Formats: sequence, structure tokens, C-alpha cells
Amino acid sequence: MAKVLTPRGENYSQWYNDLVLKADLAENSAVRGCMVIKPYGYAIWERMQRVLDQMFKDTGHENAYFPLFIPKSFFSKEAAHVEGFAKECAVVTHYRLMNDPDGNGVVVDPDAKLEEELIVRPTSETIIWNTYKNWIQSYRDLPIKCNQWANVVRWEMRTRLFLRTAEFLWQEGHTAHATKAEAIEETETMINIYAEFAEKYMGMPVIQGLKTASERFAGALETYTIEALMQDGKALQSGTSHFLGQNFAKAFDVKFTNNEGKEDYVWASSWGVSTRLMGALIMAHSDDHGLVLPPQLAPIQVAIVPIYRKDEELERISEVATDIKAKLRARGYEVKFDDNTNKKPGWKFAEYELKGVPIRLAIGPRDLENGTVEVARRDTLTKEVVAIDGIDNYIVELLDTIQKNIYQKALDFRTESTHSVDSYDEFKKVLDDKGGFIMAHWDGTDETEELIKNETKATIRCIPLDQPEEEGVCMVTGKPSNKRVLFARSY
Amino acid sequence: MAKVLTPRGENYSQWYNDLVLKADLAENSAVRGCMVIKPYGYAIWERMQRVLDQMFKDTGHENAYFPLFIPKSFFSKEAAHVEGFAKECAVVTHYRLMNDPDGNGVVVDPDAKLEEELIVRPTSETIIWNTYKNWIQSYRDLPIKCNQWANVVRWEMRTRLFLRTAEFLWQEGHTAHATKAEAIEETETMINIYAEFAEKYMGMPVIQGLKTASERFAGALETYTIEALMQDGKALQSGTSHFLGQNFAKAFDVKFTNNEGKEDYVWASSWGVSTRLMGALIMAHSDDHGLVLPPQLAPIQVAIVPIYRKDEELERISEVATDIKAKLRARGYEVKFDDNTNKKPGWKFAEYELKGVPIRLAIGPRDLENGTVEVARRDTLTKEVVAIDGIDNYIVELLDTIQKNIYQKALDFRTESTHSVDSYDEFKKVLDDKGGFIMAHWDGTDETEELIKNETKATIRCIPLDQPEEEGVCMVTGKPSNKRVLFARSY
Repeated sequence: MAKVLTPRGENYSQWYNDLVLKADLAENSAVRGCMVIKPYGYAIWERMQRVLDQMFKDTGHENAYFPLFIPKSFFSKEAAHVEGFAKECAVVTHYRLMNDPDGNGVVVDPDAKLEEELIVRPTSETIIWNTYKNWIQSYRDLPIKCNQWANVVRWEMRTRLFLRTAEFLWQEGHTAHATKAEAIEETETMINIYAEFAEKYMGMPVIQGLKTASERFAGALETYTIEALMQDGKALQSGTSHFLGQNFAKAFDVKFTNNEGKEDYVWASSWGVSTRLMGALIMAHSDDHGLVLPPQLAPIQVAIVPIYRKDEELERISEVATDIKAKLRARGYEVKFDDNTNKKPGWKFAEYELKGVPIRLAIGPRDLENGTVEVARRDTLTKEVVAIDGIDNYIVELLDTIQKNIYQKALDFRTESTHSVDSYDEFKKVLDDKGGFIMAHWDGTDETEELIKNETKATIRCIPLDQPEEEGVCMVTGKPSNKRVLFARSY
Repeated sequence: MAKVLTPRGENYSQWYNDLVLKADLAENSAVRGCMVIKPYGYAIWERMQRVLDQMFKDTGHENAYFPLFIPKSFFSKEAAHVEGFAKECAVVTHYRLMNDPDGNGVVVDPDAKLEEELIVRPTSETIIWNTYKNWIQSYRDLPIKCNQWANVVRWEMRTRLFLRTAEFLWQEGHTAHATKAEAIEETETMINIYAEFAEKYMGMPVIQGLKTASERFAGALETYTIEALMQDGKALQSGTSHFLGQNFAKAFDVKFTNNEGKEDYVWASSWGVSTRLMGALIMAHSDDHGLVLPPQLAPIQVAIVPIYRKDEELERISEVATDIKAKLRARGYEVKFDDNTNKKPGWKFAEYELKGVPIRLAIGPRDLENGTVEVARRDTLTKEVVAIDGIDNYIVELLDTIQKNIYQKALDFRTESTHSVDSYDEFKKVLDDKGGFIMAHWDGTDETEELIKNETKATIRCIPLDQPEEEGVCMVTGKPSNKRVLFARSY
């Protein structure tokens, strides 16, 4: 059958767009830059949410909800924050429409102008810290550890489904602490949770590190990040956790009385991941046949396709399939038995490959005679014939094997694609010839970082946390450096 | 100790506001009409979401996500819809801020004016049907049964926490069908699901019925509603399900080829419940001591308070409490053992009463000697002493008893508060003296409905579905009527 996707080798970017559309994950909407997340895409996002939400709750966080709108003046209160966020954003200026006096539908009612414009939240530090002011008087009110699942809007000029959209879905955690040490510990706990989620559930290895000053969140003293490598050799920032110091407490005058009776400003962290993770998940594992989903996040883990000519064959296959399905569902797995009579098996095989279903079973009359089924793995595209007796145990184990294999494959790819370089010439050559992650020495200055970025389009993705100290010299300026940092071109 | 709430008998409205604030459910934000849902309130909403979401999925619905913004012109496409929704709404006119040339923070960049204004969704029929146009060609693409959990904005002038806010959270289902019968069946299925949710989980009896033409959703051919009675004798519309006919399909040109090869417009339903249910839940059951939560939706089902003087007593109590907690959590119940040493037992008792925790256990040294605990029920405010041995089974049964009792109490109240009247004078007298639900004959005209509304502030809440046919005459005009309808003053 005809390939439905542009092959990766031909045009990676087009392959990605094809895949998002053809696998029914998302599409562009009538509103510039805003996407529609389709049911199959949303089902994956829901699984991400469910796992993350439990991880947050297990570490003592509670969900809450804060307003969509933020008064314009709030943005001006934190100097760095206004530079970073109060620019490309959706501004509500009026609160009423009226019938067009000329009879052409509706127009904005000029009398319904807001006294102060409202900004559709691009992130909620300001409105939340304005709220926390009323919640916090004493150290006994601390810590506050709230998370919010919400939509946010940033008016991006060039958008791509999941990777960069004007509106996107995310969670944002906002915590308040009595001490600096506790706020830093929280910031680190959350980046660890994101890393654990990426690796265990998404099957996507990540490098944890600190952003350089120029790449920090607007208003943060320190930004922790997890960076993943996509198959085209570009990095994708997949989650960030910010130590905000007392910046927002000072901007919104949030003080507390500590356990010695002294007044101090409250310490803060914030952290978030978004539907961008969908883009990461797609690009980390999928191939020219379609999606490859890790079983932990797949909406359907097993698809069963009957192969038959006569109705009575379908009936007998249905019995076996229904039994397998019941056994697996009882153990918490989602199974789809596709007995749609309008589609041929070949069409169904291609469809489940495209949708990334981890395991596909095919059952025909001969299988019934032999007491077997054909088991196809999506990750390796291999098939084998397996006894029906005990098939549920077999599948449960195989799902675990697939989850691990997907991770290992991505890890092997990243290992092969990570290069240590010692000269700027080599750096440029590796970047152009191979892409991937490059570990190199840097003198720690904004100027050098900026120069490399302008000349090569590569940025410092992070200063990795587990990178060993190593005496060296900056590949550009020759100034001393005691640690390699992680460079890459990125999404 | 001092009462923290205004008693209901004194000022019901103030009691409600006090309760929402004091029980940490929600508060007003810095943005006019927008609320902050606090963690305890949000935890109740999350439980509602979880139950409803599963009910939707069990009936074949999938979640998806559509844009927050809707192009202004979309509202003009369905004539009734524009009248109902395109008036009081938040309008985005610009997409950028800039530094104020005068140095006063940020101002709207006049160069960043949108060509077409965007409306923050008050409901999503228009943007969704514009999307469905691309999803539907043939009857094989139908039905589509999508649900969306989202925030929406309606610029209300008079707001009240949960009951009427400018921004609120809700779910909106939007389905597309090949036949009228199927769309009507879907509309009815969903109002049944809402009724089941209200009664089984919220413990709140509801009356299902049809809205009159004047009270229908803007763009619907028929609106089904569930109406609940609050303790002050006013009705609260708690969920609606709309049969939209082919109105939106025609407005957005959504046609399909049916199984006979003929083109037709697609049939539609939409249905939703919102954070308004939080208001209903609070007002249906709570008392002058605080919230009364049905166990099915309570974030904490059991609170355990230790009564002790010496540390070694607390230690021994902790052992027992930890054991009870473990046993109940293993069965899926949320238990809080409150060993906070800064608060006295009396304070804790009042706090858990205020928060509506269904069961409170108190354990002191004498209890340990006797092998007993004190069990206090929130719904009846009664206490009894129960053996620790087998306490988990006792509590599981008691939670079930409480759930049923809360429902029965609300049902009894509604039964007492529902009156059949046959004259307009009696109608007005009952309305002013007793309030509640009034069943009366009505001639079926908009004029009479309007007159009654203007003279008494009572509206027809619905034409109940299970009301028997009964010959009668309209209490106002004396014209014939064959069915009583449900009147009440309402929220």
C-alpha cells in the first residue's frame, strides 16, 4: 500500500506534520496558531496527566484553579518577568458585542471598554502570588504547594502542532516556602519528577541541568531543565523547574513571620510541562510507518484483528478474542478487538501501525486449529506465533519488554549522537555533519554564548548536573573552564 | 466556641458566602467576577470530574480539546445562538503589549490590532461545528461523540462564587449523528447520566424535564434540564442537555452522505455541567456548622483526632490510628490522622465539621483501654462508641448509610416543599409563605409564562418528564392544560 507519511530521511519536518495529522493526534484550527487536539491525541495527553498528577500528589501537592485573566498592571510588578512575558500575548479590551448598526452581524460595543485591559495568562506567577499574599501570614501557613492544570496563551508567530502553539495545555506548579533551602529542594524534587516521568513513562532519556543566565525563566534565579534528543539530532526542552528566590514575594509584597517572630519575604518555586511533551513523545520514537508509543502511555495497548472469510469463522475468532480481551482488561490493559467488517485486515494492520499500538494480535482459522495467535510488535516490527494458552501473561511481559526496549533504543541513539569536542572548528563540523548533543568547554560568559548562537544556531541547552569537573579551556576564547556544557540546535 | 457562619435562618445568602470562604472552597480574585478555586474546593470538583468522566467514557464518549478563542464572525452564523451568547463576552482585540513611552509599565501596542476580534468561548458549538465540517463526509464517520473539559467566560454583571462567575470550569459534550432519532436518544441519555450523577453521587434528588421555548439554550430545538431544590426553597438548574436539530450543521455547512447515498445535514446534541454543581452541592446539604459532604465526593472521608495529654499516649493512639487508616486506604477511602500538636481537639472537631468530613473518629487513652473509638457522624451530628475490632467494616457500612441518609433527607425536604396549587392566588401565597417547588397548570403560552415571571419572579423550571397527564385549566388564564409544570424561584 502507498506510504502515508513522508519518510524521515526525505524531510523530517514534513514527516512530523504528516504523522500528527494522519495519526489523528491534532490539527490546526480556524484560529491562527491554536490547535484542535483530536480524541486519539487527547487520550495520550490524558494518560500523561494521570501519571504526572499522581506523582505530584504523592509528593504533597494539591490542585487548585486561578483566573484565566491577569490585570495588565500585574505584569509590570516584576521587572524581569515583564520583559519575558508581557509582550506577545492576547489582550482583552472589551466585554460586550452589539448588533452591527449596518446589519453585518456583531461588532464590539465601544461603550464596553475595560478600565484596565486583561491579559490571557501566558503563565500565572503574578496572579497566584497576588493571591498567596492573602493566604500567608506566618510560617505555619507554609509551605503552600499548589498545581494547576490549565490552558495558557503566548502569541507565537511561527507555530507547529504541539511544539509551539499560541494556546497550549499545561500544568504549572507554584510553591511558597519559609526558607531558601526548602524552595531549592522543591525545585530539584520537581525536575527529578519530570526526569522520572520522561524516562519511565515516555521511554525518553533526558539530561538534567541548569539553564545559563540568558536562557532562564523571566523572573527566576535558577532554571532547571530536562533536555531530550530527537531523532533528527535536535534537542527539545521537555520540562523546567524554576527557583524564583523572593522575587515574586517582593513584587507582590508577600511576607510572613518566621518561627523566630521575624518578618521575611516568602521563597518560591514554579515548574511546568505542557502539551509540547506530545511533540517530544512523537519525535523521540516514531518511524516511517507511524507512531511508536510506549505501552505506559498508549491509549490502546493491544489491538486484535480477526482474519476470516466466513461468518462462522469470525464468530469462533470473536470468542477467543473476547476472552483474551477480558483477561487483559482485568489486569488494567486497554484492548481493542477490531471486528469492523468494512475494512480488510491489511488496512487494519497499517492503521494500528500508524497509531503506534504496541502489540497487534492476528487470529485466523488456522490459529484456532493450532491454538495459537500471531503477535506483532510495533517497536521492532517483528512477528511471532504464540500459544493462546497463557497469552495474557505473555503479553503483559511483552509490554514491559517493549517499554524497556523503546527507552534503550532512544538511549543508545543519544549515546551515539553525543560528542565531546575541544575546538570550535570541530564543534561546527560535528554540528553540521552529525547534529546531536555536543559537550564542550565554555568560558561562562553571555558574550561567548551569544556568539556561538549567532554563528551556529546552537545554544547551550544546559549545564548538566551530573557532569564531572574537568579542567579545560573555552573552545572559542581559550579562557579557563572547569566543566563541559551541553550544546545543540533545538526546537 | 463562636459560630463562624451566619446561621441559615438569619441570612441564607450570607451563610452561603461565609461557608464557601470559611471552608476554603473558593474566593474572589483580583479579576472582577473570576474566582480562585482553593485546593479543598478543587478536590471536590476533581472527584466530580472523575466520576462524570468515567460515566461519559462508559457511554462511548471521548475527550478532545478545541480552541479557547472563537472568531467573532462564527457567532453570527446561527441566528438564535448569536442573540443568546455573543453579547456579554470577553473580546480579544490585540496581541501585543509594549513598554509605555511615558515609562508607566506596559500598554497595548496599537500596531498589534487583530484583523478580526476573537471571543473567549462562552460555549463551543460554533468552533466545534466548524471543525466537524472537516471530520464528516459519510455516515461511516458518524456518530462523533466528543467531550471537552474546559474553562469558559460569560461576562456576568452580578457574580456569586460557584453559582455565577465570569469564568467557570465545565465540561461540554458535542455529538454529531446521522439521524434525528439518534441525536434525541443521545440528548436523553446524557440528561439521565446527569440525573444519576446528581442523585447517586451528590445525594441530590433532581427533577428531569424539558425547558419551555423561552428558556431553551440559544440554538436548541429542545433543552432537557435537571432541577434541584435548595434548602431556602429556591430551584437550581444543575445540568442541561440540548437537542440542536440540524441548526449548527446548517450554520457551518456540515453535510454527510447517508447509507442510501443521499446528502443530508448532520444532527447534533450538546450538554454540560459546570462548577455551578459545587454551589448546588453546598446548598443542598450543608448546615449552620458547615459543609455536609456525601462520602462519594468528600476529599477526606474519615478524620481521626487523637485525645491525649502525654506523648506516650499519643504514640499508642498513633499506632491504632495508623492501622485503621491503612485498612481503610486499602479499600479506597481517604483518611486523615490529624496529629498536629499545635491545635486542640476541640478546634479540630469544629474544623472537620466545617469541612464536612463525613465521619470523625476520636481516640483517647480510655478508648485504648476499652478497645473502642468514638465515632461521630457529620450528617446527623450524633456520636457513638464502637469497638476497634472490625472498625473498618463498620466505617465502610456507615459511609454507605450516610450517603443514603443525605439523599433521603434532601428527598424528604423536597417532598415536603413541593406543592400542587390550582389558583394563581394560592400560587402567590405558597410562593411567598413557603417557597419550594410548585406544580401548577399553565396554558402553554410565552405570554402567560412571562406574566407570571414578572409578577412573582417565579419561572417554569421545567415540564417534568414523568409528570402524569391530567386535565386542568391554566391558573392564570383558565385555558385548558393537560399537564402540570414545575414552577419555582431560582438561582
